[in-house]
Amino acid sequence: MKYSVTFLPDNKTVEVESESTLLHAAEQAGIIINSLCGGDGLCGECQLQVVSGKAQAEINAIAFFSKYEIEHGYVLACRTKVEDNLTVMIPPKSRAEQEQILLAGATITYSEPEKLVLHRRSCEPAFAFDPLVKKVYMELPAPTMEDNISDIDRITRELNKVSHYDHFEISLPCLQNLTEKLRAHQWKVTITFARHNSSGRILEIEGGDTSEKNYGLAIDVGTTTVVVQLVNLKNGKLIGVKGSHNLQARYGEDVISRMIFACVRGSLEPVHKAVITNINHLAQGLAAENHIELRDVTAIVAAGNTTMSHFLLNMTPCAIRLEPYVPTTTVYPQVYARELGIMINHEGILEVEPSIASYVGGDIVAGVLACGMADKQEIQCLIDVGTNGEIVIGNNEWLVCCSASAGPAFEGGGAKSGMRATRGAIEKIEIHDGKVTYETIGKARPRGICGSGLIETIFELVNNKIIEPHGKFDTSRENPRLVNENGELRYIIAFPAETETGEAISISESEIENLIKSKGAVFAAIKSLVDYVGLRFEQLETIYVAGGFGSSLNIPKAIAIGLIPDIDVKRILFIGNSSLTGARLSLTSIDAFEHSLKIARSMTNVELSNYTPFMNEFIAALFLPHTDVKLFPSVHYQS
Amino acid sequence: MKYSVTFLPDNKTVEVESESTLLHAAEQAGIIINSLCGGDGLCGECQLQVVSGKAQAEINAIAFFSKYEIEHGYVLACRTKVEDNLTVMIPPKSRAEQEQILLAGATITYSEPEKLVLHRRSCEPAFAFDPLVKKVYMELPAPTMEDNISDIDRITRELNKVSHYDHFEISLPCLQNLTEKLRAHQWKVTITFARHNSSGRILEIEGGDTSEKNYGLAIDVGTTTVVVQLVNLKNGKLIGVKGSHNLQARYGEDVISRMIFACVRGSLEPVHKAVITNINHLAQGLAAENHIELRDVTAIVAAGNTTMSHFLLNMTPCAIRLEPYVPTTTVYPQVYARELGIMINHEGILEVEPSIASYVGGDIVAGVLACGMADKQEIQCLIDVGTNGEIVIGNNEWLVCCSASAGPAFEGGGAKSGMRATRGAIEKIEIHDGKVTYETIGKARPRGICGSGLIETIFELVNNKIIEPHGKFDTSRENPRLVNENGELRYIIAFPAETETGEAISISESEIENLIKSKGAVFAAIKSLVDYVGLRFEQLETIYVAGGFGSSLNIPKAIAIGLIPDIDVKRILFIGNSSLTGARLSLTSIDAFEHSLKIARSMTNVELSNYTPFMNEFIAALFLPHTDVKLFPSVHYQS
Repeated sequence: MKYSVTFLPDNKTVEVESESTLLHAAEQAGIIINSLCGGDGLCGECQLQVVSGKAQAEINAIAFFSKYEIEHGYVLACRTKVEDNLTVMIPPKSRAEQEQILLAGATITYSEPEKLVLHRRSCEPAFAFDPLVKKVYMELPAPTMEDNISDIDRITRELNKVSHYDHFEISLPCLQNLTEKLRAHQWKVTITFARHNSSGRILEIEGGDTSEKNYGLAIDVGTTTVVVQLVNLKNGKLIGVKGSHNLQARYGEDVISRMIFACVRGSLEPVHKAVITNINHLAQGLAAENHIELRDVTAIVAAGNTTMSHFLLNMTPCAIRLEPYVPTTTVYPQVYARELGIMINHEGILEVEPSIASYVGGDIVAGVLACGMADKQEIQCLIDVGTNGEIVIGNNEWLVCCSASAGPAFEGGGAKSGMRATRGAIEKIEIHDGKVTYETIGKARPRGICGSGLIETIFELVNNKIIEPHGKFDTSRENPRLVNENGELRYIIAFPAETETGEAISISESEIENLIKSKGAVFAAIKSLVDYVGLRFEQLETIYVAGGFGSSLNIPKAIAIGLIPDIDVKRILFIGNSSLTGARLSLTSIDAFEHSLKIARSMTNVELSNYTPFMNEFIAALFLPHTDVKLFPSVHYQS
Repeated sequence: MKYSVTFLPDNKTVEVESESTLLHAAEQAGIIINSLCGGDGLCGECQLQVVSGKAQAEINAIAFFSKYEIEHGYVLACRTKVEDNLTVMIPPKSRAEQEQILLAGATITYSEPEKLVLHRRSCEPAFAFDPLVKKVYMELPAPTMEDNISDIDRITRELNKVSHYDHFEISLPCLQNLTEKLRAHQWKVTITFARHNSSGRILEIEGGDTSEKNYGLAIDVGTTTVVVQLVNLKNGKLIGVKGSHNLQARYGEDVISRMIFACVRGSLEPVHKAVITNINHLAQGLAAENHIELRDVTAIVAAGNTTMSHFLLNMTPCAIRLEPYVPTTTVYPQVYARELGIMINHEGILEVEPSIASYVGGDIVAGVLACGMADKQEIQCLIDVGTNGEIVIGNNEWLVCCSASAGPAFEGGGAKSGMRATRGAIEKIEIHDGKVTYETIGKARPRGICGSGLIETIFELVNNKIIEPHGKFDTSRENPRLVNENGELRYIIAFPAETETGEAISISESEIENLIKSKGAVFAAIKSLVDYVGLRFEQLETIYVAGGFGSSLNIPKAIAIGLIPDIDVKRILFIGNSSLTGARLSLTSIDAFEHSLKIARSMTNVELSNYTPFMNEFIAALFLPHTDVKLFPSVHYQS
């Protein structure tokens, strides 16, 4: 039995089997609906309004809706089976953001990673430019009776002069027609070779000179976004950058729900394919815009958390999720990109930055590489804030790390008005005398609030005494922005008339509580790790803060809510997407890549879920800025 | 236009396009006709008798036939185009021997290679049993929060205890479903791992204990024969051996004509496929006879001359043939057997013994490994006699080698009654007072003479003064076995009544001349190399003689015709197929395989075609035993 479903305002109609869910129908229509939990009916993100036809929502789902909404046909797409011909309206907030980004051609803004290298002290050498895959043109001397070594030895004899490998691996296909190729091209050939383990690996031998065309991709495979940089491997120059939301979002918004999809509810293959589709789209776009051929792309370095790295390589991450949190591997083999369906040069290779443990991934290793903390004598700290907060402390002699689940709050998840750092997101906010001013990404009409905007919101609310230090609204004062919605107080940041969607942008007490839990988890992790190594915050020479907050993070406000330790703000640097920078360093410098392997080998992971002091620290941190005010001596809210 | 061709006595009929050759038609009928030259009309091996229909032989080809034969429809199959419906009779001598061998199920006898190890001095350690591919069963401890390293690290941690690798490469497919596999089998797994370059390489991870089943193949890829040994890699025991004629024979009997086929007249693919078919047939036969599964065969080591190694790996050998004789490579990459179409375990690997130069191949390297000459202080010599004669002199500090084209005489080519060392070949012969006695392989009725038989024949002829020391018949004496055939004198070894074919087995003056040229080339190569390193024959502690002579070679007779230097016969050892022994040593001992790589790196090739003294030595050696009798002090023909 089939039914038709028409989606408004798109006016797209599909036919589906009865018992299909509306979420499935939307997917068939090519419409991507938000789904944080991956279709488990837990997140309430996939709300739709049935405007004609009969649809029966699951009884469990009604908790997400007001009486008014239930009466007007609101349902959860994932929990609603199609048993009639339906017409359905998709509210703007339920539409997955990646669609808006991709269709609108909007780009995500990233902090210029070139700057990062400048953070390195001038006395330390930058990594030498020495890309993972090189192309060398050579005009070989023709063999004579006095010099009749084998064809491949003639090539490696020359390669030894221009590379530091003492051994070259060569694939059988490269050898099979080598004799003809060399002679047909009068001994003029271009050799493409890569670092493979510690040896050289000849990937391709082409007739003539193609050495001018050699490109690479640095990829940050984030849970939320996938960002690709196109790099010229002849000179290390960054040619372009493109990002899009990770298409895996349709299988769940966070790594946990995607693992559940891959390992329990669905299967691995579509999750793997989703990120490959991301990469191919972005690579194609970059190639087209910059007038290069994808076959001239010979190398990829990707960095991501451990689960994302597993998904990228089509490895099941099925023991990562539950105690004792075991990944398949932390060091990933070099693979041919074609093995994964990535369409670059047929012999092009892909390296993945090594992980440390299930919840400290290659993105963190790349971040440590990028900020240079593993090269310095001074003890520094890297804080990467996302769905997980990952912390690294150390120097050129030792490195310890840990991770704590921060929840999706800082990435715009879990809050009605929360959104990722894309066009229309409020990223800066100030409240003066009850008046709210804000800035949005792309200077667009506001659509929601992203992580950095939420941090500022919390600060402004507590600093203006709209909330108490424990996060509850101070209802003793009159406030026209404080409204009761379905029995819960919400603070209005932008009224309906100001917003793109026509709905108010607001924050509720429970959402504030979630944000305090998130910042508490991150701070407790930092504090636990600092204590673990017997240090005090003052002893951290620099704190690097990384994360997908958008282009900026207000450090003083982040300190003031108790997210980041209270040290001199001049010693705290926001470094943006350091995972991407680290991947690009590894792509363009073998030294850097080997450095990242060394970082991964030498870093000690402290498992916080087993570590009693962490829970105490967490509870102590559920306050603004902290229950122990001595930890935040510089923080004073206005009185 | 199509014609039908019927082959007798098989009574097989095929339809072929006009202009097809009879050789091609026979191939289509599945009948393998001898063809030493690969279809160039040069060897006269593919003689057929057209018994009905009109066939026009090329005028050039009639030199191979008597007037009687021409009148009775004898033609060369390769030079005769089909332009009528034909019926053709195939004489026994024109039928390729491999067919008789394969159909009759006859086996080739090889000297027991176990004995070779005994030649090694007892003071020297034999290579440790440590096969290239090992299977280890392990019951891993399940992960805990205190021990939550990655799944693959849990495996390599155990592997490190039982192997000497400090690094393990692992293929992506092995990792992709590892997590499920380990847990589904309660952490009980069998790891199959190989030596790859200098690291370990995990090939397969199987649930449960399959470690008892691990087999390997040692293969001698000879130009004439392909021989496969099946070895138990759990204990190193030889399980079985099987050989067949190299199916490449249809593209030419020797390496030169096969190279011409692959590079000029035809293409590489069928030549490559032919030897793969050989290997698959032999492997299947060995597996079936010994009740093992081919999927339990995980490793192959092959040894062959440089051209054969190229054909095996489907690499064009097209610059080997002509000056300056350049192979594609001398060190072959480890490949998956499946890449070549060899049907063993899907992850099973194949190694090829390294070559030295275009005409000193992996068979010689394997031979040096097998006889142990590279381990001893004493200077020894290895002589491998086939279509090429390859000589190695040296000890544990240095090795020099050379090769000289000996022609096909010692492998039974180029002589009307010559044949390879298979059933029915005369391998021993004595002449007393004009009476000829002989022994054949398999005690069958004689079909021809193989290499060792020809060496004995030359000795008996000169020792009985039937020929002079320069190779001409002494016509001054009456001899009933000396007959004039088409203007050329031939000595009858077996009269028509004695033979299987009903044709006399005989040798002509020009054939004797060819044999003297062959032995002259081999001896001149030995002499040149001994002179090159400033030694005398007496200083060679041992001479190892290898080659496809059959099960035996009469050393005193080989000395007496001037093929082998005249030193104490107790210091000359016939070691048979040392290429196969070396391959088996490498298969069962990583030490041995690495030793063969070291041998290949350290051996110096002396290019005789460039070396003036060689031509002088060659001319001086065209005499029985030699023009310089002082070189053969112990040789005295009966008077």
